[in-house]
Amino acid sequence: MKIIIVGATGTMGKHLTGAFEREHEVVRVADKAGDIQADITSTESIENMFKQVGPFDALISTAGPTYVGSWINLTDKTFRTGVEGKMMGQINLVLIGQHYINQNGSFTLITGALTHDPQRNFANASAANGAVEGFVRASAIELQNGIRINAVSPTVIENSPQYFPYFPGDIPVTMQQLEYGFRKSVFGANTGQIIKPY
Amino acid sequence: MKIIIVGATGTMGKHLTGAFEREHEVVRVADKAGDIQADITSTESIENMFKQVGPFDALISTAGPTYVGSWINLTDKTFRTGVEGKMMGQINLVLIGQHYINQNGSFTLITGALTHDPQRNFANASAANGAVEGFVRASAIELQNGIRINAVSPTVIENSPQYFPYFPGDIPVTMQQLEYGFRKSVFGANTGQIIKPY
Repeated sequence: MKIIIVGATGTMGKHLTGAFEREHEVVRVADKAGDIQADITSTESIENMFKQVGPFDALISTAGPTYVGSWINLTDKTFRTGVEGKMMGQINLVLIGQHYINQNGSFTLITGALTHDPQRNFANASAANGAVEGFVRASAIELQNGIRINAVSPTVIENSPQYFPYFPGDIPVTMQQLEYGFRKSVFGANTGQIIKPY
Repeated sequence: MKIIIVGATGTMGKHLTGAFEREHEVVRVADKAGDIQADITSTESIENMFKQVGPFDALISTAGPTYVGSWINLTDKTFRTGVEGKMMGQINLVLIGQHYINQNGSFTLITGALTHDPQRNFANASAANGAVEGFVRASAIELQNGIRINAVSPTVIENSPQYFPYFPGDIPVTMQQLEYGFRKSVFGANTGQIIKPY
């Protein structure tokens, strides 16, 4: 299976690359490194990425820039970090990628528990996650040719301890659990699901 | 109580204006009519609106432009209708309005069942609703001075029969039920809730 991992050089992307490249062809996409560079806030850059990759079977996205910070600094301007990044960046990967993906292929996006379980400083991520999850459910009934779509929604992940203080009481998701979430989406048959790997 | 109704000339806004103006001071806001005109896709226009209204106790929004149409025409460009309208329009009403609203005031936004129950042609609304609902939950733990925030999430409403064919099998929400949803938010004590008035 030919699998694109967008955000391949991040904490999640590195683990998933290592896990999947033993048995599959993995194309690592990142903004400044990887096999192919792409800026997901640009539809032109996304289009170029798909043209370079050619036909593929699965796209995994772990790319989710959002504004993290004090509520008093949350304005229309700072909110756009998540709107253009985690939200429209991932949505455009699907809207554009559907024209390049193989029949019965799959898209797996990243959201997070903040959708339903907010924490201070993360309102932008809660909104972006909610948008992506609404889109995942809606696009699952629209995509043609057997193409599936799901999101994986972890809590804070064990390899990002710098975030632990922001998620008091949240049991970190292990990298293994996270990987299982993506495996369920990519190799399973479900569509329109928000997979909680815990 | 001084209540701003944004989208006051629409199907929902008209009903809510009639229901609330008997006992409260209602300020009707719409894009081209009402007591005050505002374009919620412009932060400058929103700011001007709040300056004209002055201090208030509750803001109700029924303003939710989104792209409705065939999946094949859903692109980054058409998606922006819902991003700028129902999503950022409503979010900016809160981010800006929090500086004008009275202590213990409330914001009540509009979403809809499409968040979790998608229908063809409405993926843009599903995403915008999901974003607003995530934001409502997150901002409820950030807003200060006793300010509350909720969303009302109806299915298709009885006074919009033109939409019935798009929502097969959905039991329309009556205008009375819709009004009860807004009453619960404005006059109750809950915050961070997605109120389903059915």
